[in-house]
Amino acid sequence: MTTPLRLGIAGLGTVGIGTVKICQSHADLLTARAGRPVVVTAVSARSRTKDRGVDISGFAWEDDPVALAQRDDIDVFVELMGGEDGPAKASVEAAIAAGKHVVTANKAMLAIHGQDMAEAAEAAKVALRFEAAVAGGIPVIKALTEGLAGNQITRVMGVMNGTCNYILTRMENDGVSYDTVFADAQALGYLEADPTLDVGGIDAGHKLALLSAIAFGTQVNFSGVALEGIERVTIADIEQASDMGFRIKLLGVAQMTGRGLEQRMQPCLVPASSPLGQLENATNMVVLEGDSVGQIVLRGAGAGEGPTASAVMSDVIDIARGFRLSTFGQPATNLQAVQPAQAAAPAAFYLRMTLKDAPGALHKISGALASAGVSIDRMRQYSHIEAAAPVLIVTHKTTRAELDFALAEMAATDVLLEPPVALRIEEV
Amino acid sequence: MTTPLRLGIAGLGTVGIGTVKICQSHADLLTARAGRPVVVTAVSARSRTKDRGVDISGFAWEDDPVALAQRDDIDVFVELMGGEDGPAKASVEAAIAAGKHVVTANKAMLAIHGQDMAEAAEAAKVALRFEAAVAGGIPVIKALTEGLAGNQITRVMGVMNGTCNYILTRMENDGVSYDTVFADAQALGYLEADPTLDVGGIDAGHKLALLSAIAFGTQVNFSGVALEGIERVTIADIEQASDMGFRIKLLGVAQMTGRGLEQRMQPCLVPASSPLGQLENATNMVVLEGDSVGQIVLRGAGAGEGPTASAVMSDVIDIARGFRLSTFGQPATNLQAVQPAQAAAPAAFYLRMTLKDAPGALHKISGALASAGVSIDRMRQYSHIEAAAPVLIVTHKTTRAELDFALAEMAATDVLLEPPVALRIEEV
Repeated sequence: MTTPLRLGIAGLGTVGIGTVKICQSHADLLTARAGRPVVVTAVSARSRTKDRGVDISGFAWEDDPVALAQRDDIDVFVELMGGEDGPAKASVEAAIAAGKHVVTANKAMLAIHGQDMAEAAEAAKVALRFEAAVAGGIPVIKALTEGLAGNQITRVMGVMNGTCNYILTRMENDGVSYDTVFADAQALGYLEADPTLDVGGIDAGHKLALLSAIAFGTQVNFSGVALEGIERVTIADIEQASDMGFRIKLLGVAQMTGRGLEQRMQPCLVPASSPLGQLENATNMVVLEGDSVGQIVLRGAGAGEGPTASAVMSDVIDIARGFRLSTFGQPATNLQAVQPAQAAAPAAFYLRMTLKDAPGALHKISGALASAGVSIDRMRQYSHIEAAAPVLIVTHKTTRAELDFALAEMAATDVLLEPPVALRIEEV
Repeated sequence: MTTPLRLGIAGLGTVGIGTVKICQSHADLLTARAGRPVVVTAVSARSRTKDRGVDISGFAWEDDPVALAQRDDIDVFVELMGGEDGPAKASVEAAIAAGKHVVTANKAMLAIHGQDMAEAAEAAKVALRFEAAVAGGIPVIKALTEGLAGNQITRVMGVMNGTCNYILTRMENDGVSYDTVFADAQALGYLEADPTLDVGGIDAGHKLALLSAIAFGTQVNFSGVALEGIERVTIADIEQASDMGFRIKLLGVAQMTGRGLEQRMQPCLVPASSPLGQLENATNMVVLEGDSVGQIVLRGAGAGEGPTASAVMSDVIDIARGFRLSTFGQPATNLQAVQPAQAAAPAAFYLRMTLKDAPGALHKISGALASAGVSIDRMRQYSHIEAAAPVLIVTHKTTRAELDFALAEMAATDVLLEPPVALRIEEV
């Protein structure tokens, strides 16, 4: 096999340029490892003339990514434009229809259309691969689909949005508010044009839905991900969680339960001493648990030119080597449509509340918990500040339903100065 | 491809039994993921009648693993006996000659015979795979060979002997001596029959040599690994390193330098706050660094029935899926024979010494360092204990040659009560 593998790259932003650079600078290395040359033959982007710091004059140019996807002189269509519909979807569908392999970094598109696209790719006997869509340079799709293929996967967890982790880390380290760090992150260009994609947990939720499909052999179900962003996390929560030995992370958790597939992306407390708790700044971490392998932790850069291009090239080289793997690790037509779990697995919860400085206030709160059947593991009452008493409670394991009952009971007392904050404590 | 992939397993110890269990308990899962059934057809072990807790009566039996390797009813020979020569080598060679794929967990055999075996396997157009040989359940061979295949690898590091890390962790946490923990570990069966394989760094050195070959496209060169065991690490070193913010780990480091391939397996200081520094007990960690991806950290169980069998099955499923990858990620005949680096890259060093309680003692030591051109980053002198003054020095970056010159100068003074301890501080 010394026939070159020819790439058509749609999208010459950070990742597209990173991919071009690897092909140009590592030609010999790629040939040695892939067993054949890997070359870029054609590209498409919004502007043909923009200076991107690499020479693209040797590549054919298409204004229309759909036309690129259909060119006779490409074997693999590399989709790096983004967007769940529009040109990305149209061109990937065109590439599959034209019998081209597809490599994409587009988590949003696959989280919505992944099942249809995987079925189409398999019917056309082409590869549709997406290592770059989840956790940047970390080879987590490969680890899950191939490395742990002998395992019944029991749980997948991950901190997979670097921007959120950056915001939470800076709030903790610098003691500044969410709004301040958010503004800084926006000024630095760390946030998506629609920041809700990041801080609302949507981007990370897309990634979790893709991992779930592989892990549990289910059809991608992004709408089944219970989403909660980090917008309501306060400095007080971060500091007081820390005081009890926890850190707050935007953590994704997926597990198959007797009640259906549980997928959550929400701020959680994790032990400060755990690998997830120790994760700082924009770094990503994915935790994979299998019945044989136990717990595997993968850590690395979740975004950026080099890391994401590295992931794109992993898929490209697999294709060059002749590996043909189903998009989600088994034929898409085998994947089961499952019901989302109606309730999350029981957990301990962290509760933060502010009580009026009145006799019996704490007694009423503990009464509300007791009547809901929620027992207290640890409690701290801090000194009163202007007639308000901050109180922290860590519960024993309970269901969210019991907790909600307790919260309703508390709301019915007259001792709360503001609605309590309740965050799940994840056992990691 | 619904033809079953048929395994012949040689060696029914922990890992062999773990592999049988996965094939028996996950038959449907394996068929779904591999696209065909994966079945054990024949086995070989020392005792046919030993109760191993699984039913092997449905498998053909061979007393001789070489006969097993040549059976017509197997497609993959799974070598789980161990030992660098003897039956393991003979049967793997027989399997390759008979046109069987080989999956092995045998790091010692491959560290010595890997180049010859890889060439033989490639000439015979069969796979020779060894995920289970390095870091147990962590899919590190796959991450390096495939996940990071688009990268020029710049450095590979790892804590890959769980027993050594267990010993060092327990020394630190319980404040007990090396000899005490060593005796406990031996009683618990954590050590190899020849404990030097573990505590002398040989086992971990085998693994490092295998990773180097993939990372740098070089022929496996175990004899080029500079080996130093943990036998001389004392509680005093662990405590005083900790006092300066470090932990001591048996750390493998491989990097290609202008002076040749540097491979070291030795006790090193790493920052206590780094992922490597935080690694406790028998857990393994491998750090892969590439020019595009940056740093990827992989963590998991490095040994045990489930984790190692998970790695065996990863290779088996790859073979069932039809993936054909060269043993070291590119044709063995391409791998370069390289010279070991004659000197390690410069580093900061930790020096611990005990000085006589005499005027000018410290002055003589600092003079020895100055005359060797070694400058001091940090120094601590502790209170005298029975006329002896413990002194810790962290140097600025220097070469081992300069350091050795300084140590010789120190030895020529009359102020040292015992030879200084010098440990490298690795930038991780």
